[in-house]
Amino acid sequence: MSSNQDYKMKTEATEEELYKTACEVMPGGISRNVVFHKPHPFYVSEASGCYITDINGVKKVDFANNIASLIHGHAHPKIVEAVCNQIKKGTAYTLATEIEIEHASLLCNRVPGFDKIRFMNSGTEAVMAMIKAARAYTGKPKIAKAEGGYHGSFDTAEVSQSASPANWGDIDSPNSVAHVQGTPKEVLDNVVIFPYNDIERTINILNRHAAHLACVIIDPVPHRIGMVQATPEFVEAVYNWTRQNNALLCFDEVICFRVAYEGAQSNYNVKPDLTSLGKIIGGGFPIGGLAGNKEIMNILDPSGNDYRFALSGTFSANPVSMTAGKVAMELLDREALDKLNHNSQIAIKQIKEAGKLADIPLSITGKGSMFKIHFREVAPTNFRESYEDAARKKVINLFLDKMYEENIIIINSCSCVLSTVITQKEIDMLSEAMLNSFRFIKPYLSA
Amino acid sequence: MSSNQDYKMKTEATEEELYKTACEVMPGGISRNVVFHKPHPFYVSEASGCYITDINGVKKVDFANNIASLIHGHAHPKIVEAVCNQIKKGTAYTLATEIEIEHASLLCNRVPGFDKIRFMNSGTEAVMAMIKAARAYTGKPKIAKAEGGYHGSFDTAEVSQSASPANWGDIDSPNSVAHVQGTPKEVLDNVVIFPYNDIERTINILNRHAAHLACVIIDPVPHRIGMVQATPEFVEAVYNWTRQNNALLCFDEVICFRVAYEGAQSNYNVKPDLTSLGKIIGGGFPIGGLAGNKEIMNILDPSGNDYRFALSGTFSANPVSMTAGKVAMELLDREALDKLNHNSQIAIKQIKEAGKLADIPLSITGKGSMFKIHFREVAPTNFRESYEDAARKKVINLFLDKMYEENIIIINSCSCVLSTVITQKEIDMLSEAMLNSFRFIKPYLSA
Repeated sequence: MSSNQDYKMKTEATEEELYKTACEVMPGGISRNVVFHKPHPFYVSEASGCYITDINGVKKVDFANNIASLIHGHAHPKIVEAVCNQIKKGTAYTLATEIEIEHASLLCNRVPGFDKIRFMNSGTEAVMAMIKAARAYTGKPKIAKAEGGYHGSFDTAEVSQSASPANWGDIDSPNSVAHVQGTPKEVLDNVVIFPYNDIERTINILNRHAAHLACVIIDPVPHRIGMVQATPEFVEAVYNWTRQNNALLCFDEVICFRVAYEGAQSNYNVKPDLTSLGKIIGGGFPIGGLAGNKEIMNILDPSGNDYRFALSGTFSANPVSMTAGKVAMELLDREALDKLNHNSQIAIKQIKEAGKLADIPLSITGKGSMFKIHFREVAPTNFRESYEDAARKKVINLFLDKMYEENIIIINSCSCVLSTVITQKEIDMLSEAMLNSFRFIKPYLSA
Repeated sequence: MSSNQDYKMKTEATEEELYKTACEVMPGGISRNVVFHKPHPFYVSEASGCYITDINGVKKVDFANNIASLIHGHAHPKIVEAVCNQIKKGTAYTLATEIEIEHASLLCNRVPGFDKIRFMNSGTEAVMAMIKAARAYTGKPKIAKAEGGYHGSFDTAEVSQSASPANWGDIDSPNSVAHVQGTPKEVLDNVVIFPYNDIERTINILNRHAAHLACVIIDPVPHRIGMVQATPEFVEAVYNWTRQNNALLCFDEVICFRVAYEGAQSNYNVKPDLTSLGKIIGGGFPIGGLAGNKEIMNILDPSGNDYRFALSGTFSANPVSMTAGKVAMELLDREALDKLNHNSQIAIKQIKEAGKLADIPLSITGKGSMFKIHFREVAPTNFRESYEDAARKKVINLFLDKMYEENIIIINSCSCVLSTVITQKEIDMLSEAMLNSFRFIKPYLSA
């Protein structure tokens, strides 16, 4: 084939046509499962602020923000300007840059528990580095994670992420369920699964593996565990257990770092040893980060006396992600964050009212600028309660499609995340679309 | 601390001062081991084409190109323009884009063995996805890789990357050596190590694990195995073995895809089942890719009959990396690539002449636009031969520092990678700096 062939699509292509071509070159026609949608994915033309324009020219309000990663919506002028200035000076070098020090300083000064930080390219890489660091520091091989918890695609981190009634086993000792077929038994055996927020069962389970556990990973506002906040009692019980058993408490704040100015961990009296980061700290560009206690982080120092963990990465700490991330976090000052969280409370209130008007069972979980809709009278408190079977998932998909038709984009888990550029106007559009969509699915909910 | 604090460094800060601040917030003061340098890393101010200007205002010629990832050097005007246009329209959405289909089409049309492709955020993620796909497809847990081979930081992929005489064991059955302390024994046990380019020993080793091997991974121009090209006989022997033993042949072309228009695999009569990609296909932005046989790739299709491998990723296939990558690959047509490789041959010839003038032992390995300097009369043919002990590494570091002083940046493995914007002028600067540096280290080489 000629090297001069132009791969620009016909601008008049329909979504069906685009998807047909996509299926010829990508499995399922997609490059991320999250965009998968039947009969075809939706295609973006451009986005600005809290609005996305699809390739049909239809404008939609974005309450998904690339799965919670865009805290200031799309193409924030200050980020665009700073990043384009950087790109003209290069996007990556084999040498260090000042901007990585500036972004590291900003984050370490912002969060009390962040003595030192290292950057990677994704949340997946951040969690993998966190687990490797815990193993290197403690010399123990096992990790513990919550059933249903999503922590990226490192094979060890994704165990039991998609457990179901068919395979999850006894709640007193949940099975370690492979997320991807072919995950070696040896990987599964090194992952201990506990029921989220269940202190007694969790401590019993941890005790059985105490000698081999390097760390316990907690996402304090877990998107895939019903977005139920970890209780202070649960976090403290696990923290105390790790102190007594030579294990680390690791927080996954890739998604939930946005919920408070100093991260979700500021909502607890005890602090994690290590925290994985991603999403908003990259200002819309690929990023990951591992931050925490100096003594542990120093195992990454090639010149240190306690060097145990060699880590590089072609694009880690690249000046584009660093620049965008620094500007985004500077813009997210206490005032901006308070306003964002306040707006989210207004949205939740209005959606609850819409639920009453539509007379459907409704509960809402979440924290800060993230919340999740449940079509249940009582909010779930753990993964098994939040599990939706195939019939319920079908109704949820009807709801999501109806919301999209109403020109509102939310996350396919029925979650919304707000950006700082959302105003009362868009919140009203959200709750109105919710009302219409609630009414639309009501017959199916009671069926 | 006030949220308004300005984290911009003093522009007059020296490298020593910057590094002091860096050490307070990052382990070892760095975010990637590759930039680590004593007494401090070097800091970039800006870059353009094949020149980098450091923070002291000194211009240097870049023969490292962010570890081989920048095929057109820094801030190529066409990439800058296309990317800045995209950034104004947003950097990431929760929906699909046309540009990901265009880039996927370009790559699949370019390389005969690429039926389908999926994008990730780094080479590390690409190799991890390749291994997970091989395990899911074959149902077997073990992987085989070459001693000394670098394949990113997935724990399974990095085993024996840094093996040394103290731990590498018998060449007939090399040990699986942890790269990071605390790597679980169970991970090591699932990785089979073979001696690169040694057909008889490798086949014997593979045979012993045949029932459990999902794949054999080969980097055909391995940067960390002396940059010795895989022989056609070796690749064919491994290929035939995988056909007979229900295993996949996986190529890691994250670095070496640049060596030929259709990738390094075009230099062989047999084709890998799967290929991991990264570096140049992102045009200077974070990227990874997994490409290969349709039947295998389809295990990633959520709507397919053979769905086994669920994979998402917040920034995977983001429109910035896709745009930059597509423009970069379009610019890298057959003519551009032939010229680039031709220039590299000229550079090698001139460096060999410099070696003769300086009267030092010298051999050069590599392929295409990548080559590696060895201070030996005879080029190494495998990892153990290419191993440099502490005393030799000290001399190599003297050489690297002298090259930097001569205003030439090369990779710390003594490797050079060219970009398409390098001209005869810079090649002359390279060989002249080499001559000076060869003369400088000559006394240490013979010591």
